[in-house]
Amino acid sequence: MQRREAVLALTGIAPVVALAGASKAASPKNDLARRVRRVVDLYAAAWNSNDMTAMAALYTPDVHWVNVVGMHWQGRDEVDYAHRALFDQMFRGVNSTLEEVESVAPLPGGGAVAVARWAVATYRTPSGQISPASRTRMSLTLVPHGDRLLIAHGANITIVEGAQRSDPVRQRRERKSS
Amino acid sequence: MQRREAVLALTGIAPVVALAGASKAASPKNDLARRVRRVVDLYAAAWNSNDMTAMAALYTPDVHWVNVVGMHWQGRDEVDYAHRALFDQMFRGVNSTLEEVESVAPLPGGGAVAVARWAVATYRTPSGQISPASRTRMSLTLVPHGDRLLIAHGANITIVEGAQRSDPVRQRRERKSS
Repeated sequence: MQRREAVLALTGIAPVVALAGASKAASPKNDLARRVRRVVDLYAAAWNSNDMTAMAALYTPDVHWVNVVGMHWQGRDEVDYAHRALFDQMFRGVNSTLEEVESVAPLPGGGAVAVARWAVATYRTPSGQISPASRTRMSLTLVPHGDRLLIAHGANITIVEGAQRSDPVRQRRERKSS
Repeated sequence: MQRREAVLALTGIAPVVALAGASKAASPKNDLARRVRRVVDLYAAAWNSNDMTAMAALYTPDVHWVNVVGMHWQGRDEVDYAHRALFDQMFRGVNSTLEEVESVAPLPGGGAVAVARWAVATYRTPSGQISPASRTRMSLTLVPHGDRLLIAHGANITIVEGAQRSDPVRQRRERKSS
């Protein structure tokens, strides 16, 4: 027992601060962030081990996906088929590193919508072009399934690095901090 | 009264087919599609009349948005500020035409996640580059708010037209139909 807790116990004063801390750690918001992070980590592990069966286990049956070039696949069969084909063609061994889960917003019914930022290594497209190392922002709409979250929708956007300096919100933030 | 219905009425057989049709029209799935279409139509109207106040009225307070070049804005203030700035810089008078709501999937709690395909007219970026006429796929995560749906998340991806012929699902579909 720490000294502060011992004093509280002796005085009979409820350890409000300690309880508040514990309550925050286990708050619904923190719990949701933890569950989103779990899905994202499993996605990263599936991607980097080229394990499409593990990746498909993260999808709902009616998952929809829009990839970086705007292909739209509807339903688990299509999303799984497309990912297997693209991994065979170009993504096998191409590392994808999670940089940050930038946002987690709760949805009614226990789901969440989150944006994760990834760094993707260079790869060669089916048409033979080299795609240089890049970053993407992946939007994930997640729904509860037992104590897990599953991916109901994914949309993955390549970050055009040169355009970021024109971001009005970033410019406003820089003006405020300067 | 059509002949078939008259026969059914005379024989006392319930017009199952007609009822099934009526039931389908008012089904929860069709109702959700209709409500999603309403938001998308309001979004189109707001875009094409450069009415950022009408656009912001479609957002939840904690809306997040990732735009076509991967800028990520968090919360209604940022999403609204960014859209006003980008309309002032480049989108005013640039028409955006809804081609199709390609998918509507229900979410727990009465929401939906949908993908809408848009045709966007040519515009000039802040750095002076001409963006030619293009199409995008916009993913919208929508949550109920009274009898309306509001946008909790948007992610808008430019369709790279040249890459679509490499879509594994499209190729499989073409093989099946040939």
